[in-house]
Amino acid sequence: MKTGSSVKQANLKSERNAPLAMSGEEFRVLGHQMVDQIAVFLDGIRERPVTVASSPIALRQLLGSDELPVNGAKADELFTETSRLLFENSLLNGHPRFWGYITSSAAPIGALADLLASAVNPNVGAAVLSPVATEIEAQTVRWLADLIGYPRDCGGLLVSGGNMANFVAFLAATKAKASWDIKNDGTAAAERRLVAYVSTETHIWIDKAAELFGLGKSSIRQVPVDADQKMLIPALISAIETDISNGLQPFMVVAAAGTVGTGAVDPLPAIKKVCERYGLWLHVDGAYGAPAAMLPDASEDLRGLNLADSVALDPHKWLYSPIEAGCTLVRDKRYLIDAFSHRPAYYNFNGDGENDPINFHEYGLQNSRGFRALKVWLAIKHVGREGYEKMIGDDIRLATELFQFVEAEPMLETGSHNLSITTFRFVPKDLDSGTAEGSEYLNKLNTEILNRIQKGGEVFVSNALIDGRYFLRACIVNFRTTTSDLEALVEIVVRIGKEVDAELRSATIAV
Amino acid sequence: MKTGSSVKQANLKSERNAPLAMSGEEFRVLGHQMVDQIAVFLDGIRERPVTVASSPIALRQLLGSDELPVNGAKADELFTETSRLLFENSLLNGHPRFWGYITSSAAPIGALADLLASAVNPNVGAAVLSPVATEIEAQTVRWLADLIGYPRDCGGLLVSGGNMANFVAFLAATKAKASWDIKNDGTAAAERRLVAYVSTETHIWIDKAAELFGLGKSSIRQVPVDADQKMLIPALISAIETDISNGLQPFMVVAAAGTVGTGAVDPLPAIKKVCERYGLWLHVDGAYGAPAAMLPDASEDLRGLNLADSVALDPHKWLYSPIEAGCTLVRDKRYLIDAFSHRPAYYNFNGDGENDPINFHEYGLQNSRGFRALKVWLAIKHVGREGYEKMIGDDIRLATELFQFVEAEPMLETGSHNLSITTFRFVPKDLDSGTAEGSEYLNKLNTEILNRIQKGGEVFVSNALIDGRYFLRACIVNFRTTTSDLEALVEIVVRIGKEVDAELRSATIAV
Repeated sequence: MKTGSSVKQANLKSERNAPLAMSGEEFRVLGHQMVDQIAVFLDGIRERPVTVASSPIALRQLLGSDELPVNGAKADELFTETSRLLFENSLLNGHPRFWGYITSSAAPIGALADLLASAVNPNVGAAVLSPVATEIEAQTVRWLADLIGYPRDCGGLLVSGGNMANFVAFLAATKAKASWDIKNDGTAAAERRLVAYVSTETHIWIDKAAELFGLGKSSIRQVPVDADQKMLIPALISAIETDISNGLQPFMVVAAAGTVGTGAVDPLPAIKKVCERYGLWLHVDGAYGAPAAMLPDASEDLRGLNLADSVALDPHKWLYSPIEAGCTLVRDKRYLIDAFSHRPAYYNFNGDGENDPINFHEYGLQNSRGFRALKVWLAIKHVGREGYEKMIGDDIRLATELFQFVEAEPMLETGSHNLSITTFRFVPKDLDSGTAEGSEYLNKLNTEILNRIQKGGEVFVSNALIDGRYFLRACIVNFRTTTSDLEALVEIVVRIGKEVDAELRSATIAV
Repeated sequence: MKTGSSVKQANLKSERNAPLAMSGEEFRVLGHQMVDQIAVFLDGIRERPVTVASSPIALRQLLGSDELPVNGAKADELFTETSRLLFENSLLNGHPRFWGYITSSAAPIGALADLLASAVNPNVGAAVLSPVATEIEAQTVRWLADLIGYPRDCGGLLVSGGNMANFVAFLAATKAKASWDIKNDGTAAAERRLVAYVSTETHIWIDKAAELFGLGKSSIRQVPVDADQKMLIPALISAIETDISNGLQPFMVVAAAGTVGTGAVDPLPAIKKVCERYGLWLHVDGAYGAPAAMLPDASEDLRGLNLADSVALDPHKWLYSPIEAGCTLVRDKRYLIDAFSHRPAYYNFNGDGENDPINFHEYGLQNSRGFRALKVWLAIKHVGREGYEKMIGDDIRLATELFQFVEAEPMLETGSHNLSITTFRFVPKDLDSGTAEGSEYLNKLNTEILNRIQKGGEVFVSNALIDGRYFLRACIVNFRTTTSDLEALVEIVVRIGKEVDAELRSATIAV
């Protein structure tokens, strides 16, 4: 250690004065400040608009100068400004009256779990980098499997959300069913082209998967659904038979446990039989609906997800986790490793043989991985299976109530009710929806109603297309929602519906 | 609203009593508790072992019962237990003596940013779901581009880390260069097979990309490197010419701005010329090294990343963000949208034409997306460009010091020094490393030294293979590291090296 002193700078010897360094005391003061601001926000969330729906230009102006800052700014002032900016200019999916898209009202315990995960900062890509976090994630996977009645010895991992949860399963299925060395030779080397089957109601993740992963969208068959938006088994069989006779290789059926539009659950046991007959991989997209399988009165169709080769479920959809928390479960974990594993020379992750470390980078697309599992694990420990049963059961009861409120309201028409999704639309009393003209008018009317609702900030719903008809859609995955909130929704839709109807009619007359 | 009352439960009318609900006051108390525990952890991090390297079995036992909890448990007790479990059983990449793999010492401000992001819970998949968060992410992308000298009007998004950042660019390049409708027809429809070029030092993400996205690993050409681990231009040209004459379609060169092994930077301007000549997409994997391009004394090779069609850089690697924070930048954002966009019927994300909302789900693989950008944005605002210049510059100066310490230590041999990575190995005085036997012994010796270091918890380094030789590797992306820590590293390696050497020699004699 004789040389080197010439380049040493006094400030590096034992003290960096790094601008991002923060003492425990500084962290404590800033942390309390942030927690206090969030506490006030949580208490007042009901009084805020669900969204202020500002224009992008207005929001950009709120951000101030767009120049990269050269000098820094004090953390406490930044925190106060930034908290306020976010509280006042976000769509609040934690609001009791948010039922748009499928994003949970996030549990506050999840935010504190994310804080802890981020402070400790484990990289859950490999056991050596995240010893206990890896074990907690593995336990979370077992518990999620238990929760929905899936075999607890499955493989699985936490991912960013529904797309990725389904992508992981899709890639595992592709590898499992390709008869050639697809990892080396690519999809082009197939003797017979691989074909997958989904219902027409499937979320667009399937198109994205086919487009990005080399099969191409034309390898996806959309099987028609019945009046309840469930996949038609005879149509599925017929599509498979046609492809086989055309020299293609059916390899996978994607069934929904809760479609994104109306929450429909495909007939999983019947689909499983078809998969067995033709040797196909059954993947269940339960990103939204899988947790409902834990309920004592879950349907046989839904419970059938325990027959699947793989399941996607998103704790940030119906287990009230903050974003991001998705999960893929694969019955036989070797298929995950087959699809995703690498063991390059510069990694040194393997165990000493005494027991078996889990390296999650071998289970999915990511290499570095955050500790998403912590928020899911802590919430499960905090409320237990019973707590989830109550919350999910209550969400479903509320969606049932909403359906009944709509039925009782002469200006509204029900569309569907599955799991915790209820769809409905505004129908003026004198309108004949049976004609093409009437039907078109209703779509236009309800589209405009939705636009106003989404900008008004009183409540927030989204839309679903059922057989070409445009419905408003409330998806209740929100532990803050009460009956009163749904009564208010009905009232608001009727009020806005009347307004828009009057405006559209006078505009027509004016023309 | 006349019916529906029969199914109403008293507890749903205006109060859910949801087990995950938490009042502001409860959140405040629990939040302060968590912040206080983390503050103590941060202050004491230097005194902890870097890792305790427990076995998976021992860790599983620490978790207690593996049964899914039926009932819940109190949050405050859970927090105290869980914090302790994590503090005591994690690999602490925030420790001043952690230089293994490439994971930043995470800035405490980043953890508080993650708390805020998680509490507000924006879904940054679409502007309507995350009005201000979307704009903050877009500004973060512009600032990151500015920081590394890339055009600020590029497209880009935050992703989970290096794999995903590179995957996004890989998929954009594939779509851009495919002459057929690859999204519909798949890779199999290519008239000429697509081929990509990387150096032999490229991170394995490239294999995973080729394997998962349908091209197959055999479509990747590994171009040899020179003695400094930089891609050899003549070899690149020759590989391209060979493929063209064999009827294949070269489409992309992946160059490294900081290889994962030794931090080597490929000659980017020279590679750009080759890409122009053959019409290839230039992607720069700067996941680790790109931020160093901001330094006044950055090399011309490194600054050449501003010529790339796309760049990957990871704020959680060298901008001291907590995991996960990766980023892809694409010069022309239309290529991102071409590769990833969908506009299905059940989304209602489009603007009203007055201005242009950004929907990040159209820029990458994810649909639901967390607010990763906040921690990056807040840190940039907190320390500014100047703060990052100082911290990154200091990391490089420390790596230079380490190299000099190693040079001055007779028992150690230097391997390489690029950016903030220094590699070295233990070489017993009497050993002839020129013989095959000696070389093999050195690899065995240093492998065992690394294993002991990684289990010992005093310091944490990883390894690099250079030309078949096994080196210890310290990557300093750690604003807590000081010169004294590196002096300690040298001392510890020499001590353990001597021990292991003596043991290996006596074992050989014993046999």
